[in-house]
Amino acid sequence: MSRLTHLDETGAARMVDVGGKAPTARSATATGRIRMTAEALTAIRDGSGPKGDVLAAARIAGIMAAKRTGELIPLCHPLALDTVSVDFAFADDRTLEVTARAALTGKTGVEMEAMTAASIALLTIYDMAKAIDKGMMIDGVRLLEKTGGKSGHWRAVPEHSVGDHGA
Amino acid sequence: MSRLTHLDETGAARMVDVGGKAPTARSATATGRIRMTAEALTAIRDGSGPKGDVLAAARIAGIMAAKRTGELIPLCHPLALDTVSVDFAFADDRTLEVTARAALTGKTGVEMEAMTAASIALLTIYDMAKAIDKGMMIDGVRLLEKTGGKSGHWRAVPEHSVGDHGA
Amino acid sequence: MSRLTHLDETGAARMVDVGGKAPTARSATATGRIRMTAEALTAIRDGSGPKGDVLAAARIAGIMAAKRTGELIPLCHPLALDTVSVDFAFADDRTLEVTARAALTGKTGVEMEAMTAASIALLTIYDMAKAIDKGMMIDGVRLLEKTGGKSGHWRAVPEHSVGDHGA
Amino acid sequence: MSRLTHLDETGAARMVDVGGKAPTARSATATGRIRMTAEALTAIRDGSGPKGDVLAAARIAGIMAAKRTGELIPLCHPLALDTVSVDFAFADDRTLEVTARAALTGKTGVEMEAMTAASIALLTIYDMAKAIDKGMMIDGVRLLEKTGGKSGHWRAVPEHSVGDHGA
Amino acid sequence: MSRLTHLDETGAARMVDVGGKAPTARSATATGRIRMTAEALTAIRDGSGPKGDVLAAARIAGIMAAKRTGELIPLCHPLALDTVSVDFAFADDRTLEVTARAALTGKTGVEMEAMTAASIALLTIYDMAKAIDKGMMIDGVRLLEKTGGKSGHWRAVPEHSVGDHGA
Amino acid sequence: MSRLTHLDETGAARMVDVGGKAPTARSATATGRIRMTAEALTAIRDGSGPKGDVLAAARIAGIMAAKRTGELIPLCHPLALDTVSVDFAFADDRTLEVTARAALTGKTGVEMEAMTAASIALLTIYDMAKAIDKGMMIDGVRLLEKTGGKSGHWRAVPEHSVGDHGA
Repeated sequence: MSRLTHLDETGAARMVDVGGKAPTARSATATGRIRMTAEALTAIRDGSGPKGDVLAAARIAGIMAAKRTGELIPLCHPLALDTVSVDFAFADDRTLEVTARAALTGKTGVEMEAMTAASIALLTIYDMAKAIDKGMMIDGVRLLEKTGGKSGHWRAVPEHSVGDHGA
Repeated sequence: MSRLTHLDETGAARMVDVGGKAPTARSATATGRIRMTAEALTAIRDGSGPKGDVLAAARIAGIMAAKRTGELIPLCHPLALDTVSVDFAFADDRTLEVTARAALTGKTGVEMEAMTAASIALLTIYDMAKAIDKGMMIDGVRLLEKTGGKSGHWRAVPEHSVGDHGA
Repeated sequence: MSRLTHLDETGAARMVDVGGKAPTARSATATGRIRMTAEALTAIRDGSGPKGDVLAAARIAGIMAAKRTGELIPLCHPLALDTVSVDFAFADDRTLEVTARAALTGKTGVEMEAMTAASIALLTIYDMAKAIDKGMMIDGVRLLEKTGGKSGHWRAVPEHSVGDHGA
Repeated sequence: MSRLTHLDETGAARMVDVGGKAPTARSATATGRIRMTAEALTAIRDGSGPKGDVLAAARIAGIMAAKRTGELIPLCHPLALDTVSVDFAFADDRTLEVTARAALTGKTGVEMEAMTAASIALLTIYDMAKAIDKGMMIDGVRLLEKTGGKSGHWRAVPEHSVGDHGA
Repeated sequence: MSRLTHLDETGAARMVDVGGKAPTARSATATGRIRMTAEALTAIRDGSGPKGDVLAAARIAGIMAAKRTGELIPLCHPLALDTVSVDFAFADDRTLEVTARAALTGKTGVEMEAMTAASIALLTIYDMAKAIDKGMMIDGVRLLEKTGGKSGHWRAVPEHSVGDHGA
Repeated sequence: MSRLTHLDETGAARMVDVGGKAPTARSATATGRIRMTAEALTAIRDGSGPKGDVLAAARIAGIMAAKRTGELIPLCHPLALDTVSVDFAFADDRTLEVTARAALTGKTGVEMEAMTAASIALLTIYDMAKAIDKGMMIDGVRLLEKTGGKSGHWRAVPEHSVGDHGA
């Protein structure tokens, strides 16, 4: 199955027609992380305590971007999301992890909405800390889990084996 | 210098005031990559030859997102970009790399515009290949180079040492 | 019942999950007013007669903003509105009143769409008259009525008692 | 001076031509408040302490809306804002006040950007508390101060005399 | 039947209320063309072969605009499109034709989405060739076919008789 | 001169770099028309008199779209327009003409802004009259005049000779 569903037989980009599909409950969870200097991570953490808006700003940005995925990704359908959430965890003293989840009752999956929420949340963290550390890096942005739809429940393999599973 | 410039003294988020700065020529180049199965990468490559729109769609998506960075990242200034470009390279048989460059004559840098262009271009590739490979991963999204502004010319350290340079 | 539905148990902002709710017919009506000098109100009125676009521009702005409520209010769901309307009335020689109504068949209410339509319509009036009167004031923006959904039919108390009803 | 600058001689809406104006430093400060039950205000306050995102979400929403004022208000110019900030104060046990400030170096004022930031911030508060109190009311949205431009420094009269100053 | 459905009995613009309508399968196909010098058309054609992004960019622009029709056309409903596609044909050595098709399962038709996709695709072609030919002209933008809804299947008359059929 | 300025040497789409250009005063005027049955045109005209919002809605839509041209046309620069205006004329009993003018002081021209304003204004007219006449046709959308920039003052040739001037 090597055909890209977003191309027609002539290679032209198109939105996949979901007109014949029935709406079902679907969800998707994506993750990603940003690595930075310990100094930058400390500043993020300090700016996220009482009255500090750092993580709140990144969470809001991720949620708002998820709602606009259909405007950003050319062939995504505009979707009436049921919910979006974005959470953060300090993985170690140089790494902040984000997990984003989206769900809807609809004809197509919400993987891109979860992936977009995670990406924009991480970019917002980058924006807020870039005056301290210009060398930050965003890594490991991928789908963790997906429910609903034709392919049913799907879970990611452990990250270290990504890129090998098609071997 | 551990203060986050996007927080005021009470921890509230704010846009940095660039009113006192003079417009100067600035540019930023960001990179990133997406890893996938060999099968998925082959499909991307096949969909990008004559009449295949895959990379064109991702390039357009990245350029258009760069122009909307100020709508997506809460504390970014709206910027009148002079140019944006997005390029792709097949790094190996499982990896597609993107490089995005933005430039303007203005009061603040365009790092976020380049980072956003790279991220959305990669998400568009993900969207187009996700029917083949749900386990794709976006990695190494970071700033490569920056010119202009107070900090002048900045170049990234090699990727393998990211996260160590603040040790 | 003092829990804010838009916060999870840790205080993080989230979109309420409406996935388990059935779509029903819902409507909301909001109101508000703008007070200005008699001179400014006369200009608004004169600019709204034959060939004058003042109220038409404000009406269009309110309707268009209602459709984008999910982009403006961080935790609002994107909604497929069935209808939006915006009406004006000259309450006295210094006061222009707006009434906005939105309706949909969906899983969540349209209060915010009606409130946003009223607010943006009033801001558009402000914009058009501000060269004459910089001291205009927007007041009394609130929900008048709401139908459908779990809470059923709800009507506002008279304005003078707002803020007292929780005493 | 009763002509509306946003209408041409036939009454048609238009954007005022600012082509002949020189860019100068300008700022505007707007305010507004939302009144609610003591119970709702307590919930807002409790949701704004450590880890609570309520005010952060409203602040971000206001800042982001200010940047999109030119998309919302039909005849506003798109502006390259130098800065936007949004602050809150609990005025009494039933009233939350917002103050929004915008500034730019440009050819036209930023009153509408400050007014829009204040309005959308208040609507976001409304959204977050509406499950507790549907009767909340937004009041007193107006310009407090304006600097730069042809009319120079302008300050609002005390609120209780609004609407009288044109008598 | 001369009443405009988008005006209420007072002449005020409004979104038609589709709340009482049942969702049905609907589609619309629109067309249009752009005429230019032979030199400009050759450049478009050459820029659309292997590795040339011209038509891909115009196709993507048309698809993305269709999804935002509700933001652009004041009284259009925001719609959850099932699919959009945009195709091009070189009609003669000076004319490029576009055909755009949109479909959804919903309460209202998608004529405007197809018309908007065609128009923005043509404007994108114009933008890309305007350095060569400033005199290009967009013509013949109209609905070709429409299925679903109360009026059922509708097909356009041949173009040369447009404007006569109401005689 | 057959190279498309929006493609790089490999055929990839890009925004032209205007970084080295000095801002100058520029303007562009575009036109277009919509043909319909006499019945539909009468309804438009009747809906545009006292209290009728038809032309006002189309004018506002065109102005607002001009401001968002950089979001719609992939390779257009985001521009800080100085002014936009949209005017209508009833050309005969079946034809409504639109003229749109945009101006800015900047590094690149505003042809696309004027063309986009004209196109969206015409689409809005189409939307409002489509319940009466599905066979309307948009024609003759083109640039009339352009001032400023490297190419200086440019005026269109009479319409009947369009497509011949490159012969």
